[in-house]
Amino acid sequence: AATHKIAVLSGDGIGPEITAATLPVLTEAGRAEGEEFVFTEAPIGGAAIDATGDPYPASTEEVCKASDAVLLACIGGYKWDSLPNAQRPEKGLLRLRSSLNAFANLRPAVVLPQLADASTLKREVVEGTDILIVRELVGGIYFGEPRGFKEENGEKVGFNTMVYRESEIERIARVAFDAAMKRGKKLCSVEKSNVLEVSQLWKEVVTRVAADYPEVELSHMYIDNAAMQLIRNPKAFDTIVTGNIFGDILSDEASMLTGSLGMLPSASISEPGKPGIYEPVHGSAPDIAGQDKANPLAMVLSAAMMCRFGLNLAKVADRLEAAVTAALDAGYRTGDIMQPGCKQVGCQEMGKVVLQFI
Amino acid sequence: AATHKIAVLSGDGIGPEITAATLPVLTEAGRAEGEEFVFTEAPIGGAAIDATGDPYPASTEEVCKASDAVLLACIGGYKWDSLPNAQRPEKGLLRLRSSLNAFANLRPAVVLPQLADASTLKREVVEGTDILIVRELVGGIYFGEPRGFKEENGEKVGFNTMVYRESEIERIARVAFDAAMKRGKKLCSVEKSNVLEVSQLWKEVVTRVAADYPEVELSHMYIDNAAMQLIRNPKAFDTIVTGNIFGDILSDEASMLTGSLGMLPSASISEPGKPGIYEPVHGSAPDIAGQDKANPLAMVLSAAMMCRFGLNLAKVADRLEAAVTAALDAGYRTGDIMQPGCKQVGCQEMGKVVLQFI
Ligand SMILES: CC(C)[C@H](C(=O)O)[C@@H](O)C(=O)O
Ligand SMILES: CC(C)[C@H](C(=O)O)[C@@H](O)C(=O)O
Repeated sequence: AATHKIAVLSGDGIGPEITAATLPVLTEAGRAEGEEFVFTEAPIGGAAIDATGDPYPASTEEVCKASDAVLLACIGGYKWDSLPNAQRPEKGLLRLRSSLNAFANLRPAVVLPQLADASTLKREVVEGTDILIVRELVGGIYFGEPRGFKEENGEKVGFNTMVYRESEIERIARVAFDAAMKRGKKLCSVEKSNVLEVSQLWKEVVTRVAADYPEVELSHMYIDNAAMQLIRNPKAFDTIVTGNIFGDILSDEASMLTGSLGMLPSASISEPGKPGIYEPVHGSAPDIAGQDKANPLAMVLSAAMMCRFGLNLAKVADRLEAAVTAALDAGYRTGDIMQPGCKQVGCQEMGKVVLQFI
Repeated sequence: AATHKIAVLSGDGIGPEITAATLPVLTEAGRAEGEEFVFTEAPIGGAAIDATGDPYPASTEEVCKASDAVLLACIGGYKWDSLPNAQRPEKGLLRLRSSLNAFANLRPAVVLPQLADASTLKREVVEGTDILIVRELVGGIYFGEPRGFKEENGEKVGFNTMVYRESEIERIARVAFDAAMKRGKKLCSVEKSNVLEVSQLWKEVVTRVAADYPEVELSHMYIDNAAMQLIRNPKAFDTIVTGNIFGDILSDEASMLTGSLGMLPSASISEPGKPGIYEPVHGSAPDIAGQDKANPLAMVLSAAMMCRFGLNLAKVADRLEAAVTAALDAGYRTGDIMQPGCKQVGCQEMGKVVLQFI
């Protein structure tokens, strides 16, 4: 039996609850396949600010770098909203991503048949939607220099730089083409090359990489059009690759059209051999924190992505995903995905139900 | 009877058809109120490239600057897609906006009761939606310097600058607050201030301007969240103010949720006394160009916005809008908005129907 070192960052809001519901499920799924997980908890975000004054303390960075994978719940809350940016929970998340060089953020937006009616879009429009968004995560306007403020003609000016170099675009394109090969073999690259030079380079490099993937059908779309087409006909998309901020926007939009944000996992992967970050797409939901109302399934499914993509434990991942499906099929629902005729349960109980189905 | 000088830019694709259907309607609505319109046509976009090699020739710029308002149809098409960016139709549009300093793009996204079923969103979600997006149009990353390409460590790097100065933010904020005052008195400012310095300045200045509008309820939202909330509950929005590229994305998303892109007008206004640009939100639809299938109503409604906001001819605007409503109520539909039990007509005939209802 192999041992896997997992850095567990439970973060803020509903984070500790969904983590508490998830870890026993992961342990059990591992045990069933002869794999052992060793969890090391470390603070991040608001919890880390309260404990150490820093949203991503050096001690947490050490734990993450020494692990095989990082399992993160969620961060942020009203409490820290008025702090200057450099000291806010979000900054901890950005520094975590950057320090691990977790450059490829994979965000599936899948409409589950059991939940197709939960979408605000018509069932016939979303049913069968299965999109993977591959978002560049450690470059672009999030990290571009120069950035900041200056004074010009007596007034304040704020500025940021959207920048991509060939090698950055190439490595994210390869991740996306590889992912598309394992899916529907359709890749849509999203940018704004009719206006931005950085997007022209993006399009150029993605087109060049495509030569190595003759089986994948590559298309190009402007970000404004993509934001429209995602609503018009989401089923037309298979795999999408895009830059950091466009991916931020599109993946949130795509997740909402599934109608089940509480179900969506994500993976942020680094170079081979380096730990990736696995986390739910949803936020820390401070309004329901501590009330045992949260949906732990996105975190269980994030643990499954961790096993599949980060630890090469496909069987453990299969067990986790099958247990979630079984819990849904048996009619168990947390409040956010509750439907008539189903049985509403809290966060803890949902964890126990899934555990039983492992 | 006053005379109003209108620069008419019919552009590419379906542009000439919808222009031909619109101008007689506008003339007639003016005549009914004792107002005269003098139209001067000028080329822009692909048509201008073909005629002069330049998507925004100096002669067109002169016509626009000498006019009281610019009525634009739409630009672009496959034919010019492979030209370098500086020579493409889109560049003509960007230069038009910039040369007239048309800094405030107003894009209504209204779900018409007659067309509520046309949306891909559920009727109960979109019915009653009435959003005005106020997008900054001549600054931000579209025009920010430095921009371009450089060589670094032997590889190509592409970069653009997202930049806003206080005065730019203040003037668009005032337009948005003024608009909100005439509407539901709710303004949502959209940015990404948890990551970008330029957005922090945006938020700061909008918050400062709010002091002059105590009746308007101001909220702030991150762009990723806004892209979600627009789908989750569009009715929660009244007026939105945002920067150039975020506005590009959000307004396209919002227009698509109405289900009737062919119906949506826009206005891009400049300083008082300078001509604004009035144009449909939809593109040039080269696939149906020349087939008398296009929907001219967005252009008729753009002419109405021109009368209301650009020429201070509210009565002419009222007539135009009432005629469009009457045509819909009488059951006339172009193909894009066709519904069971309605009468399908072409572009020309729709123009004639609306003309009759003036
Ligand atoms: C919290 C924020 C900095 C972050 C981002 O913009 O990347 C979040 O929106 C996300 O998508 O994970
Ligand atoms: C054609 C393009 C340059 C333009 C833009 O991005 O502004 C268009 O998308 C729009 O919104 O009017």
